[in-house]
Amino acid sequence: MEAATIAATYPVSPFFGSPHSRPYVRGFRCFGLSIPLSRLFAASMKYRDHRRQVATRSSGERITAQPSSELRRKNTGGIGGSEDEKLRSLRALFSRPGIGIDAYIIPSQDAHQSEFIAECFMRRTYLTGFDGSAGTAVVTKDKAALWTDGRYFLQAEKQLGRDWILMRSGNIGVPTTTEWLNEVLPSGCKIGVDPFLFSYDTAEEMKAAVSKNNHELVFVYDCNLVDEIWRESRPKPPFKPIRVHDIKYAGVDVSSKLSTLRSELIEASCTATVISMLDEVAWLLNLRGSDVPHSPVFYSYLVVSYTSATLFVDANKVTEEVLVHLSKAGVQLRPYEAILSEIESLSDQGAKLLLDPSTVNAAIVNLFNSASNRHLHRSENKVKGNIGRGTHLESTTQKDAPVQVNGHNTLFKISPISLSKALKNEAEIKGMRNAHLRDAAALAEFWAWLEDAVHKNMNLTEAEVAQKLLEFRRKQFGFIDTSFETISGYGANGAIIHYRSNPDSCSIVGDKNLFLLDSGGQYVDGTTDITRTVHFGDPTARQKECFTRVLQGHIALDQAIFPERTPGFVLDVLARSSLWKIGLDYRHGTGHGVGAALNVHEGPQSISFRYGNMIALQMGMIVSNEPGYYEDHSFGIRIENLLHVKEEKVPNNFGGIRYLGFERLTFVPIQSKLVDCSLLSFAETKWYNEYHSEVWEKVSPLVEGAAQEWLWKNTRPLPLPQQ
Amino acid sequence: MEAATIAATYPVSPFFGSPHSRPYVRGFRCFGLSIPLSRLFAASMKYRDHRRQVATRSSGERITAQPSSELRRKNTGGIGGSEDEKLRSLRALFSRPGIGIDAYIIPSQDAHQSEFIAECFMRRTYLTGFDGSAGTAVVTKDKAALWTDGRYFLQAEKQLGRDWILMRSGNIGVPTTTEWLNEVLPSGCKIGVDPFLFSYDTAEEMKAAVSKNNHELVFVYDCNLVDEIWRESRPKPPFKPIRVHDIKYAGVDVSSKLSTLRSELIEASCTATVISMLDEVAWLLNLRGSDVPHSPVFYSYLVVSYTSATLFVDANKVTEEVLVHLSKAGVQLRPYEAILSEIESLSDQGAKLLLDPSTVNAAIVNLFNSASNRHLHRSENKVKGNIGRGTHLESTTQKDAPVQVNGHNTLFKISPISLSKALKNEAEIKGMRNAHLRDAAALAEFWAWLEDAVHKNMNLTEAEVAQKLLEFRRKQFGFIDTSFETISGYGANGAIIHYRSNPDSCSIVGDKNLFLLDSGGQYVDGTTDITRTVHFGDPTARQKECFTRVLQGHIALDQAIFPERTPGFVLDVLARSSLWKIGLDYRHGTGHGVGAALNVHEGPQSISFRYGNMIALQMGMIVSNEPGYYEDHSFGIRIENLLHVKEEKVPNNFGGIRYLGFERLTFVPIQSKLVDCSLLSFAETKWYNEYHSEVWEKVSPLVEGAAQEWLWKNTRPLPLPQQ
Repeated sequence: MEAATIAATYPVSPFFGSPHSRPYVRGFRCFGLSIPLSRLFAASMKYRDHRRQVATRSSGERITAQPSSELRRKNTGGIGGSEDEKLRSLRALFSRPGIGIDAYIIPSQDAHQSEFIAECFMRRTYLTGFDGSAGTAVVTKDKAALWTDGRYFLQAEKQLGRDWILMRSGNIGVPTTTEWLNEVLPSGCKIGVDPFLFSYDTAEEMKAAVSKNNHELVFVYDCNLVDEIWRESRPKPPFKPIRVHDIKYAGVDVSSKLSTLRSELIEASCTATVISMLDEVAWLLNLRGSDVPHSPVFYSYLVVSYTSATLFVDANKVTEEVLVHLSKAGVQLRPYEAILSEIESLSDQGAKLLLDPSTVNAAIVNLFNSASNRHLHRSENKVKGNIGRGTHLESTTQKDAPVQVNGHNTLFKISPISLSKALKNEAEIKGMRNAHLRDAAALAEFWAWLEDAVHKNMNLTEAEVAQKLLEFRRKQFGFIDTSFETISGYGANGAIIHYRSNPDSCSIVGDKNLFLLDSGGQYVDGTTDITRTVHFGDPTARQKECFTRVLQGHIALDQAIFPERTPGFVLDVLARSSLWKIGLDYRHGTGHGVGAALNVHEGPQSISFRYGNMIALQMGMIVSNEPGYYEDHSFGIRIENLLHVKEEKVPNNFGGIRYLGFERLTFVPIQSKLVDCSLLSFAETKWYNEYHSEVWEKVSPLVEGAAQEWLWKNTRPLPLPQQ
Repeated sequence: MEAATIAATYPVSPFFGSPHSRPYVRGFRCFGLSIPLSRLFAASMKYRDHRRQVATRSSGERITAQPSSELRRKNTGGIGGSEDEKLRSLRALFSRPGIGIDAYIIPSQDAHQSEFIAECFMRRTYLTGFDGSAGTAVVTKDKAALWTDGRYFLQAEKQLGRDWILMRSGNIGVPTTTEWLNEVLPSGCKIGVDPFLFSYDTAEEMKAAVSKNNHELVFVYDCNLVDEIWRESRPKPPFKPIRVHDIKYAGVDVSSKLSTLRSELIEASCTATVISMLDEVAWLLNLRGSDVPHSPVFYSYLVVSYTSATLFVDANKVTEEVLVHLSKAGVQLRPYEAILSEIESLSDQGAKLLLDPSTVNAAIVNLFNSASNRHLHRSENKVKGNIGRGTHLESTTQKDAPVQVNGHNTLFKISPISLSKALKNEAEIKGMRNAHLRDAAALAEFWAWLEDAVHKNMNLTEAEVAQKLLEFRRKQFGFIDTSFETISGYGANGAIIHYRSNPDSCSIVGDKNLFLLDSGGQYVDGTTDITRTVHFGDPTARQKECFTRVLQGHIALDQAIFPERTPGFVLDVLARSSLWKIGLDYRHGTGHGVGAALNVHEGPQSISFRYGNMIALQMGMIVSNEPGYYEDHSFGIRIENLLHVKEEKVPNNFGGIRYLGFERLTFVPIQSKLVDCSLLSFAETKWYNEYHSEVWEKVSPLVEGAAQEWLWKNTRPLPLPQQ
């Protein structure tokens, strides 16, 4: 049922690019197809796959993969009074001296465009009671509305109080947030936002959109209005210590990375850059943290100039070891909150900043631009001004201090870290290989256990199965966390691409239908992400045909060889054409980038039917290969391995360029019971058999007993076709 | 040798889109990859494939496929004095009263962005002596330079006089035409162009480019300066009668087509449109002409408003039958030259024009815009102005009469005819099918003859073979013309993608190497375009491997099934991936649109590795399927069929949309001798055998004797693989 709702939020065909898809921005917005601006709010700028999960864990605890029904209950019935009370308190702030706004927009984001965020930043969830991963709340003096997409219509209906209007994004006739504001507010209103929660690009688009009805977008720098009403009940910010990411896993030391970045700054004629993406900071400094679930990152900003590097972070998280590590690379420390005063001081020094407008928040960019501008004025007038967080409210359309957009003080450019981080070095690749083998061992143990449990009719729920998988992974060396919330979907639930099993009400995993399991681990040396679909009983011919066609797409992409400079989207059709032959398709991309012991979703590359991302697949990149097929109300199929882009030894080199291909990182059997051998070609059957022989060879030494027995049974070759 | 030169004009990888490739412009420019603006001049906006040929036939004669060495000799040694004399005369005109320019740009185009043009419009050829299909001449008061691309470097060196500088477009350090003008002219010069010979878009780009050195682009409306010096020796304009394209082939009558177009005008809130593409005029009016080689079109403009339609054409070409045909549809006639006064009168009437800026020339667009503007001023000032061809010289940057670009009087939009024409109706498809069968019969006869001739060592040249092919085609019902100049390339010549055999010096077709033959016919009911590559002796293992991989790409595209709304470029990889597997590729697109008894190259669709064209493949479109492989100095391979995009009966319809596939139109054997059966999969072998059984079934009744015997031998099945 939910899957049908999802379908309704898409345009009829998935083959229309998003009107807002921008080439060369890192990653892209999934679900950003039909309702541009509200979607910009609903989804972060970062890559979103079929696993946009709410981060539910208090970040101070050990993070587990256990779902979050508790949290939902806490949120809806917790401290803070009725929702009416929250809205009343929020509106009271509109007219507070120095604020003076007519509406306030509350997005889902934190200040770093993170995919998973700490609980203390879940302001939209706190205010509305709705805890789906995607949603934007807009509150005017007399109205309150929440936008979310088809995945969450039912959930939002249940969770929203009576004062809230549910805006079903993507349904015909439903306005975007800014269209709605243009409709419901009289011309010339002031619309407030927390400028930390919007990328500069997004804020600019909003500004233009609301200007159509002469509204002004007002950046409320002083405070976040939701935090003001949240007060004591607001969860504490994350405080777990940061750790050093060992050089044997990182491969390149911080000084070298900083040196490369500085060369790029010099080449771009910039004097400094502000890095706000948490995985970029972690990668550049060879540090890892535990501030949010699933991603080993920590809240911070990093400012790098020719001569200095300053990490803005809560000092409590910095251990002695980290301090030594940073000082060796000449990285100084300042408090997280000091970022704005640093921005001002950079402007005072006449810095020219390289900024990625799709990731750096509007607070930083606008402060720098207006401070630089004041600095210019000051130089002319010999008058000294003053500015800082907590001291002012900034109109985004002030006429006396025009913002120096992309002028001589700011170069807007995709972050140079994005590509460097995507091109894994040998140590990172080695770590990824090793982590994947241990992950495969955990999965062999898990699948052997689950098969047995199902056959013994133990009536385990999807959530219990996910929990058990976590236990198997935990036993492996270097395991830290799940890399996203496990998707454990039996039968019809498997057809819900973004399914999240509710422990209280989810299905029993049985032997009457397909079971789709998409999961991953964060290890000290690497990040995994794997999907397998199995049947513990007798699959139907229909299920076998669909599974086999998904497998054929998986094999075609896995086996692709392509010239350097080929963007990922060119290969997407290889994964779909076997399904297309019988009129089937799937409504998600085929591949996303994966970090090395970092975020499970990263850019800039992707393999997708959306054609906006022109970034080429390059040696050292990691991408997922995950075609699927989802039959509404019935079953879901996905087969996912991670691949490493490598040079391919080919007998020719037409054009004098390299030809690239993939090395498989994932080594877990693909259930033979689901393969309709009559559909496979000789070459496909050979691929299947060779893969399984490799799985046995690599993983069997890491397991024993029942798991090894299971692995043996599940790596037997298919008969070669006698056509 | 030439092929190496071609290679040098490309960027290292073909997987970089042209910086000037624009989505949604009809067709695209081949070879427009590396040197934007000079290429804009060198290549027309229309689709250019690997057969950009100079139209060499005097358009009054019966057009044959005989190459044009005579014409070249005439051009280089003909009337008109030495080349110095031509340049001297041209420069003398620069300072003529009312002109006053410092440089003049002479492109290859006619006023209609035609692929093949009448001899009287070959001004660049006349002026420079260089008769390659692509080239732009620029003459300043003391310099003269010609830009052409790698295909023509050697030819241009031979043909250009000593006063000409050869600009090797695409070579490193070679400036574009406008960059060069910015370099060699002192700031603030006037650069003249004939505004009829540039699309509005191109003229705008040039204007912006030369403004960098403060130059002004001056539209010389009065006359074409080359025509002024050409005088008596200039060939007469084409005068052959226009004929009615029978409704049984056209399928839809003119009134209905006009009615559809008027609905589109109303929908776009426009009152009229000017159609200048010759194939669009011919298609809309169900007329055909013989003004240029290879394309059955006639020089004309068509203006359609809500209530009227006026054809601007030389009255001498209009027969009584055509007159009756046109008047039935309410189409009036005016002289070709009257188009400008019509544009003025449209402006007087306050018309709002729908114009395609990529095809309509700058003369028309700018005249309309400035006339509309004067009209506005007039309305305000009650003062009457005057304008017309032959009366003024227009500065494109005049400040007192700013051009109303895309203002309330002009809507710039892709021509609505472009897509309507591409979506063939049942009658057109039927005509295409029938024409292809007769063409296949001619080819069976031809190949039977050629095989015999080669085995008898008759020492036929590539040009003689092409001539003989024309004779076989001529015997078929309804044959009118070749649809482009035949590419007949033996051995190393086959590796030159745009090869044109010179009768005086071309190769003998023998049995020691591959022979590539790309040709097509214009028939009364359809247009064909087919490439086959054969070997009359013993192919090498290398040739067989390359041929087989090209064949695998051909089969993969032929067999593709894809959802509605899929742009052609998505399928391009299917045709390349078999070559990529061994590090090979080809540097041209895989498919172009084809008209029904019209231009052999038409838009808006294409199947190409250039990703700019987002036009979806749609039911009723015709596309070519022509992967290839070219080994420099050695051999060339291409296998080309035409395909008709049709709905595919598939067992599912995921997304509630149609799934599309292809119907083959071309039925000529693909030489089995060149197939390495060990590389083909079972499914590919089956495709090959089924295709050949279909060829035999459809074509054998149309031939007899040796041709039928040849057809029988060449349609025998390959052994199915015993893998």
